[in-house]
Parts: sequence; C-alpha cells; structure tokens
Amino acid sequence: MKPDIKEILSIKYPIIQAPMAGGITTTELVASVSNAGGLGMIGAGYMSASQLQAQIKEVKLQTSNPFGVNLFIPNQFENSAQKNAEAENLLKQIEDELNITDKYVDLPAFKEERERFYNQLQILIEEKVPICSFTFGLPEKGISDNLKKHGILLIGTATTVKEAQLNEKSGMDAVVVQGMEAGGHRGSFTLEGEEKLIGLMSLIPQAADHVTIPVIAAGGIMDRRGYLASFSLGAQAVQMGTAFLSCKESGAHLLHKKAILNASDQDTVLTASFSGKQARGIHNRFISLLQKHEDNLPDYPIQNSLTKKIRAASAAQGTSEYMSLWSGQSPMLAKDQTVKELINNLIR
Amino acid sequence: MKPDIKEILSIKYPIIQAPMAGGITTTELVASVSNAGGLGMIGAGYMSASQLQAQIKEVKLQTSNPFGVNLFIPNQFENSAQKNAEAENLLKQIEDELNITDKYVDLPAFKEERERFYNQLQILIEEKVPICSFTFGLPEKGISDNLKKHGILLIGTATTVKEAQLNEKSGMDAVVVQGMEAGGHRGSFTLEGEEKLIGLMSLIPQAADHVTIPVIAAGGIMDRRGYLASFSLGAQAVQMGTAFLSCKESGAHLLHKKAILNASDQDTVLTASFSGKQARGIHNRFISLLQKHEDNLPDYPIQNSLTKKIRAASAAQGTSEYMSLWSGQSPMLAKDQTVKELINNLIR
Repeated sequence: MKPDIKEILSIKYPIIQAPMAGGITTTELVASVSNAGGLGMIGAGYMSASQLQAQIKEVKLQTSNPFGVNLFIPNQFENSAQKNAEAENLLKQIEDELNITDKYVDLPAFKEERERFYNQLQILIEEKVPICSFTFGLPEKGISDNLKKHGILLIGTATTVKEAQLNEKSGMDAVVVQGMEAGGHRGSFTLEGEEKLIGLMSLIPQAADHVTIPVIAAGGIMDRRGYLASFSLGAQAVQMGTAFLSCKESGAHLLHKKAILNASDQDTVLTASFSGKQARGIHNRFISLLQKHEDNLPDYPIQNSLTKKIRAASAAQGTSEYMSLWSGQSPMLAKDQTVKELINNLIR
Repeated sequence: MKPDIKEILSIKYPIIQAPMAGGITTTELVASVSNAGGLGMIGAGYMSASQLQAQIKEVKLQTSNPFGVNLFIPNQFENSAQKNAEAENLLKQIEDELNITDKYVDLPAFKEERERFYNQLQILIEEKVPICSFTFGLPEKGISDNLKKHGILLIGTATTVKEAQLNEKSGMDAVVVQGMEAGGHRGSFTLEGEEKLIGLMSLIPQAADHVTIPVIAAGGIMDRRGYLASFSLGAQAVQMGTAFLSCKESGAHLLHKKAILNASDQDTVLTASFSGKQARGIHNRFISLLQKHEDNLPDYPIQNSLTKKIRAASAAQGTSEYMSLWSGQSPMLAKDQTVKELINNLIR
C-alpha cells in the first residue's frame, strides 16, 4: 500500500498545478490553486534566488495552505562557439524581421547554473517551503537528505518506468509520471540517443506497478474525465499544466492563451528549437524555420538564452509566430476560466 | 446522446478484440472472445476471399454470438524498381544470415489489392457477417451504403480528431480512436508529411466531443485499469490488441508472446521497416538494421512482401530478431492467460 498523497502533501484535493517556468506561475495562480484545496507550484527553474524568495514571500501572504516550488536540476552542457555561431546565424533572419538591434546575449555557464541551484535550495530551507519538485534529473543524495532533514517533501519527474524507479531509489517521496502528451519541457533524464515517448495511458499503470511511492499523472489532463481516468489507471493525483496555464490567473501571455484556445489535437509538436531541450508546443513559424536544424542546435540552456529576445519581441509586437506556445495534446479541452471554476469542475 | 455501442453491436461487454492480421486472430481466439461476451474480430487484411470465407464458416461453428471482420482499405502505392532493388540489397545480408535461398517475391499490384478487397466485401455480404471494421482509410460511399443495406455495422479507425470526424461523415456507425500507444500498424490516413502521434489520454475526450457516433478506445489498454479509464475519458468500448495477442488462444508465435512478456515500456518503437507503413513493435535487430533507411524504403505493401520470407524464416529458426514483434506500449501489463481470464479480469 503506497502512502496517501493527500496526507503527505496536506492537501484537500489531489490536484497539482504544474510548475511552469517563465512567468506563468504568478503568485495569484499559485495562491488560488492552494486556496482552492489543490497544490500551487512556483515554477522557479529560471529564477534567481532573490526572485524566488520574493515570490515565496508573496505567495505566503496570499495563502496559508501548502504550496511548492519546482527547480531544474543543472546538467552539464556543451558551449560550442561553432554551434552558437551557426544558431545565431539562423536566428538573425528572425531578429531582423522583429527589428531586434541589441543582439547581445549573456550566455549561461554550468558553474553559475549550479550555484544558482544551490542558492535556490538555500531559500527553500530558509523559507520553510513544504514541497519541492525537480525536473531534468535527480538531486544528489546529500541535497535530498538535507531537504528532508528540514521537513521538505520531495517530488521527482519521470517519463518512463525506469526513471520512476530511479526517482524512488533516490529518495523522492512521490513521482510525477509525465506522458508524451504533456506540454512544455520533457522531464526525461535517462535518454541514450532516441527520445522514448510513452503515452500516459501506458505509463501510469506500469509505473504504479513498479514503485512503492505515490504516482502523480501528468500530460493532457484537462477536465474531470482525465482526472478520473488517472485514478483508474493507478495514479493518486494529477498534475495539470495547460489547463492552469489557460486560467485567468496565470501569467501566460494572452497570445499564448489564445493560441491554445484555437488549437486542435494535431497542432502541437515536440521541438528543441526554443531551448535546446525537447518541449511540446503549438506549431508556429519559429518551429518551421528552426526544426530542420534541430540536431545541430546548441545545448540547453544555451539555445534558450539565444532565443530569449526573439520570444519576448514576438510577444511585445503582438504575434505568436516566434513565441514558445507550450501546450499539451488536449488544447481542444482548454477553457477561458478561473482556477476556482477549473477545480470545481474536477471535484464536482 | 450517442447510440449505445453494446446495443448496436449486440454484445454483452464493451470489449473488442483488435483485428490483428497475419494469423494472430485464430478461430479459437475470435470465437472465445465472442463466446465470453466481447466482440471477436477476424483480422482479414492479408487474406484472400476464400481464406476469409473459410474462417468465417469456422467461427460460426464455434460461436453463435456476433463477431466481426476487419479489412484494409487499399491505397494507391508506388512500385519503384529502384527502391525495390535498394531494399532487396539491404535485406540480402539478413537473407544470407538466415540461409534463405529462394528469394523470389511476388510483388503486389494495386489493381489486385483492390480486387481482393471487393471480393472480401462480397464474402461479408454472402456470409451475413454482422460487423465490419476498416483500417488505413474509409470505404467509398457506394461500398458503405451497400454494406449497410445488407445490415452490416461499420466501424472505422482514426488517430486524430479530424480523422474521427471524417469517419462519422463517411457513415461509420462507430469509430476506433487509436492512441500512439497502440501496437501494430497505425491507422492514420490523413497524414501530410509528419506523423501525428496523439496519446490516448488526449485523443479520447477530444474525439468524443467532436463526433456523435460512439468512440472505441485503443492503445495500451491491457487490464481493468485502462478499461475503466477509457470509459471515464468518454469512450463506450475498448479495443485491445496486445492483451489478446498474449492470450493462449491467439495464433501469435510463441517467440512473439515471449518477447512481449519480457519487454518494458521503453522497448517498443514505431517503424516502417517491416511493411512500408508505420507500426509499433518491440525493437530488435531487424529494426536496428533497417530503420535508418526508412525514408527510402518501398511503399506498403511492397516492403511487406519483400520482408515476408525473412520474418517467417526468423520464426522458424527460433529467433525473434527478424520477426515483426508488434506490441503496444504496455507490455509490462501482459499476461500469459486465457481469453476468459482476461475478460473476467476486465469485468469483475
């Protein structure tokens, strides 16, 4: 018998708002979810320690219920001057089209990324954040032991049964199993060559059978149908991204929300064009231009830094053609609604 | 309110055994499923009209319950002497390894394929088969009208919402929505370039919202968990392939069954290497050798004919390395059991 996820997270409903990075998880979104009895999550992947601390303090002012923070595990990456130059050359055409004149990019370095991660962890301990989840890998034993010692519940991310087992082994208290339907970045971390894309219908029961920790389902879940199906399949909770991203409280750009509300099941693709890591979003002109060069693009997070100005300029200029329009495979189920309406629909 | 699938198919349980072609759907398998209250299906895609008629007569002797037949819609294909020669050259190394000396291949022609299809349809009418399903496309209006005039219920196959809508428009009485998890051939028929892989968790509710005919879920469903989840998501029935293929009554080669029972969620891939059309199966040496040449392989069903002797010789010589080991993404849920045991587990 697995531990009860609602008990260990101290939440009323087994509903987790996916920790989407890049400004989507506003304090309003996180607090609304937690106040409604779910688990709001700050997507802190790209935040500095001080930004993170500021938002944690804000969230605490707006809810007394548990909430969580998601961090990206820093992974070694290549910084190839040649690849960077090739990518910059590809991006130049778009930058010109968008009249981006200041093309200076402060490239990330692994050492800094790791330092930032350690500083983020320090903030979680300092602020006594009750729950921390991880994407892109697993923390070292020293880190997870330390977090646990401070009473922080740990949630990892897996895209295969094997990754779910590695999560359990590394001491995670629960694991999000992310189906290939999921929007945004894939949390895979054991790839050898080809990406293993497992549908959630297959992933949940197989993972549930092979770990003793609670399984949280993610990918394409938008309404009560996916919510109930996840429990039938053996999950104890759902983690929903696109559904919360479309809510009024989310910080996603209006063009992003509109693109989701207008998309069909066939309109999303997996692409590494925006960040250097595979992520699912709605197909647009940026992807058309970059996708065929994907095998030669710089690693994450270099490519992410190189495309940042383009994405921002696209949004500022009112076109979604060069924005990263992250979305799962169920955009036809998205609704322009409040968090309260979404959660009420799930639990009714 | 959609029509009730159990009523229109006159079945006790909303369980359809997927019509797997190539000798898997033995009379024993089909009749056992129908006798247990599900719907047994003859996978007749590769059968001649006389073979089909013989099996229909056999099935009738073993069950008085409804059963169905699945046909492949014949599609135009290219017969390129150059591509065939290139493929034969690639296959030669394997043929030599397996000591295949008689390399003569009777290549299929579209005209014959279409004639065979018409003859198969004639048999269905003559034998008053109650249910006919289609893969790889939709029958022309004249054909579906004629089958309906003879009281035959029609089921189509879709891999996207758009394909589900085309099924409804063409007069299908129900539609199988095949998630990307599904084993064997993809039923896609509206591809423009890239394959659209939609997970079943996303496909069922979006399709159910956009058609008025009953939706049947297929892909990765192996046990009561996937069965119940499918209904939660909006399907009225399930169609299960790998689960029935693994049953004692199926005609799948023992090496094939064994490969499924030993596989993990990560072990299946989509490949056109065996037949010229995308299909999901367990990765083996044949796929390793052919996959990188996939874009230049002959069309279906030419490639299917070219690889036939290799697959047969591999099985005969006791190795599964050159067999087509079709499997969905949930092989870890497969069991060595009887049809009765499988169905009892579903409906318990």
